Amino acid sequence: MQKLLLSLVGLCLLSLAPVGNPPKSRRPNPPAPSDEKMVRTIFDEVLLRGTCYENLRVLCKDVGNRLSGSAGAAKAVVWGQKTLDAATAQAGKGGANVFLQEVMVPRWERGAKESCTLEAKGQKSIMLDVLALGGSIATPANGIKAEIIEIHQFKELDSLGEKNIKGKIVFFNRPFSVTDVSAFSAYGGCVNQRVDGASQAAKYGALAVLARSMTHALDRYPHTGVMIYADSAQKIPAAAVSTLSARLIHDAIQAGKRPVANLKLFCRNFPNVPSHNVIAEIRGSELPNEYIVVGGHLDSWDTGEGAHDDGTGVVQSIEVLRILIASGYKPKRTIRAVLFMNEENGAMGAKEYAAQAAAKGEKHYAAIESDRGGFTPRGFAVQDTGAFLRFVQGFRPVLAPYGFTEITTGFGGVDIGPLGASGTHLLGYLPDSQRYFDHHHAQTDVFEAVNKRELELGAGGMAAMVYLLDQYGAR
Amino acid sequence: MQKLLLSLVGLCLLSLAPVGNPPKSRRPNPPAPSDEKMVRTIFDEVLLRGTCYENLRVLCKDVGNRLSGSAGAAKAVVWGQKTLDAATAQAGKGGANVFLQEVMVPRWERGAKESCTLEAKGQKSIMLDVLALGGSIATPANGIKAEIIEIHQFKELDSLGEKNIKGKIVFFNRPFSVTDVSAFSAYGGCVNQRVDGASQAAKYGALAVLARSMTHALDRYPHTGVMIYADSAQKIPAAAVSTLSARLIHDAIQAGKRPVANLKLFCRNFPNVPSHNVIAEIRGSELPNEYIVVGGHLDSWDTGEGAHDDGTGVVQSIEVLRILIASGYKPKRTIRAVLFMNEENGAMGAKEYAAQAAAKGEKHYAAIESDRGGFTPRGFAVQDTGAFLRFVQGFRPVLAPYGFTEITTGFGGVDIGPLGASGTHLLGYLPDSQRYFDHHHAQTDVFEAVNKRELELGAGGMAAMVYLLDQYGAR
Repeated sequence: MQKLLLSLVGLCLLSLAPVGNPPKSRRPNPPAPSDEKMVRTIFDEVLLRGTCYENLRVLCKDVGNRLSGSAGAAKAVVWGQKTLDAATAQAGKGGANVFLQEVMVPRWERGAKESCTLEAKGQKSIMLDVLALGGSIATPANGIKAEIIEIHQFKELDSLGEKNIKGKIVFFNRPFSVTDVSAFSAYGGCVNQRVDGASQAAKYGALAVLARSMTHALDRYPHTGVMIYADSAQKIPAAAVSTLSARLIHDAIQAGKRPVANLKLFCRNFPNVPSHNVIAEIRGSELPNEYIVVGGHLDSWDTGEGAHDDGTGVVQSIEVLRILIASGYKPKRTIRAVLFMNEENGAMGAKEYAAQAAAKGEKHYAAIESDRGGFTPRGFAVQDTGAFLRFVQGFRPVLAPYGFTEITTGFGGVDIGPLGASGTHLLGYLPDSQRYFDHHHAQTDVFEAVNKRELELGAGGMAAMVYLLDQYGAR
Repeated sequence: MQKLLLSLVGLCLLSLAPVGNPPKSRRPNPPAPSDEKMVRTIFDEVLLRGTCYENLRVLCKDVGNRLSGSAGAAKAVVWGQKTLDAATAQAGKGGANVFLQEVMVPRWERGAKESCTLEAKGQKSIMLDVLALGGSIATPANGIKAEIIEIHQFKELDSLGEKNIKGKIVFFNRPFSVTDVSAFSAYGGCVNQRVDGASQAAKYGALAVLARSMTHALDRYPHTGVMIYADSAQKIPAAAVSTLSARLIHDAIQAGKRPVANLKLFCRNFPNVPSHNVIAEIRGSELPNEYIVVGGHLDSWDTGEGAHDDGTGVVQSIEVLRILIASGYKPKRTIRAVLFMNEENGAMGAKEYAAQAAAKGEKHYAAIESDRGGFTPRGFAVQDTGAFLRFVQGFRPVLAPYGFTEITTGFGGVDIGPLGASGTHLLGYLPDSQRYFDHHHAQTDVFEAVNKRELELGAGGMAAMVYLLDQYGAR
């Protein structure tokens, strides 16, 4: 996920959300014994008969990575529809409905394997670990060869100015803050280097940029992710370098060797192409035009298998429907699992879903997104600071025995974000964050990095939250 | 760790602990701003300048596994002393004191690689994944070959009786309960198969036993661990089988193939040998004869690298001293890091430490053990149900921002357990449990399975707990 891009938008929405839908909710505090029993049934269902881990294996190993507009993404749409059909089959005729929602998405291709050499006085040429950033233009076929200068903060670009930057390759090397306990907070403090670095450096005549990978880990894996050209900016090529490569570059610069890089990228942007959100719903028995959405994103970057980002959110969302059906729960509201297309580089699926919901007059009561990895549960982030947050915190006693102890104000998610404008309550599933950026957008984001029980506990908590919101949500 | 063995003892001690030392503690609720500041200093120290991850790498890769009485264990003692010296060097002359405490420990050796074939009508002979259980006797050199019968509960042995069991190999195949959220609770429900299975089966004339590995995972790694012969029982060989091998055996039996195993174990018990606990202390400024202990165990099983069991507890305990010294904290009480020898198969180091403490009249106020893996923090288990538990729960507001949200009644740990008899307050560091038994006592328990930040956050929480107990503990 590319979280930060829309998290600022998300934070702005914080003040809007409660206005559209003032909570008059009953607060289950202390929760009823029947709630404890239902939540136990939900967790038993997923822990004993869960299908999400096997679904993830198929998504990772048979579909593989699935960047928007690619053949992999098309295959993922077919897989999503088939898997939702199978998961909801038990609901019987008319009980569940699986359908596609067309959406136009960007298409960017990496092309041939990129490369970057580092040359410095008195040392042999070194191959750096690089990955083109998503959305970047290519270099000329023989590469861009220039001296590297190292930058930590954008304001240093202003101080250095054109005379020091023009004709150079700018290397953004601001590391994650290790004292932020939340890895997402550390990511938020760095990701502008990746997203905006090229346009910031191009203002002063830089030829290309290298951005330190967005991770706590010190290793040889470059982490890709979206970059965006400002409308006004000259477009220059941009690539991520691994943290160990970043150290090599830094050391060469510190040693006064004035290192030179030769960067070759072969990537290309194409016109938008059609793709799909994949949606399944169980109709509500009392309030069929009120919706509760659970979702993750079906697309991934074109490296690794998109396991934690966001295969886990996808299979958990599917699992929520299966759990509720298998547990015999008849929801008051219509419950939807939405597999959003194109979270990584455009969020076009998110925008399309919200636009169609508004156009059709569908009242979305709440939406829960899982896009922070499939790790062991911590709780939920509620995109609210007032009554709705306190209402959800009232669920803590029934959820805490399953590891959901933290119900705090926070960003809901990129894909559910656009629903916030119409007053939908937004919640993000909050797993433990420490290992997430070891895998995020890198070749290490594979099925094997996911633990079966951690994945299942997350799905159970999401299903329990849907149940509780449906039971106690304000009419 | 072999946890369950002493956990029953531990639970019995719950009623004793508060009696010996009635808490008259000041309760920091809400905690003072100075506490929040000190705890932040502690976490900054470990996250910015922590040495525990590098120490763990050396312990895992240079020392390797280290079963009590082995050359590896002797090397680990030297490593422990050296590493504690380095960690406490900053405390200056007289400020820290590192010493060894001799203890006699069992010596058991695996010998040549064990094996077990499975033969059944109409299928080729299969090599099962096996590991002799620690303490087991060997088979004859040409193995024990006999039909396998499958057992889930010990009471089935009583029903089947000698006529069905005599001359057979008994296969204990009770799986972990998947609906227990705590993996330790699931372990507790199964581990008697491994520990007592041989003696239970020998009563009815079984020739050997195979025990399903103690793990949630479905894979090819057998997990060893201690087994104990009852004094009255005939000694028969015992081995662990991987969960996938367990499935093969089960399927062959279910298919009516009456499978036969040929088990070959070459292990051997020797007389006890001398070894050591390794101890470092910072003397208290006000109450030097009151002690707060942090500890883990230095020994491991003879497979993998003993990373999570219990290299992480060892390096975290060392780190606690380093953090407190580096943070400039002058403790009121004497703070000790104790690297206990022989937790896995005898807990002789634990018993020796408590015996010497009692003999010397050292008053141990509290002890914190880390022996549940080095995973992301959840909180602390407090071996108390009364006032001391509530006292420690009062620390929750200062610890929760670092992921320590669960402060609950529970088992402190095997190595600190013997201190409980003299009224020492016992606390166990509680990391997330979901991944622990993927690695426990298996070849997968290696350095690479440990995440640097998760390890560091655990050490930070332990240091913070030492600080808070020292500050607010009753005189």
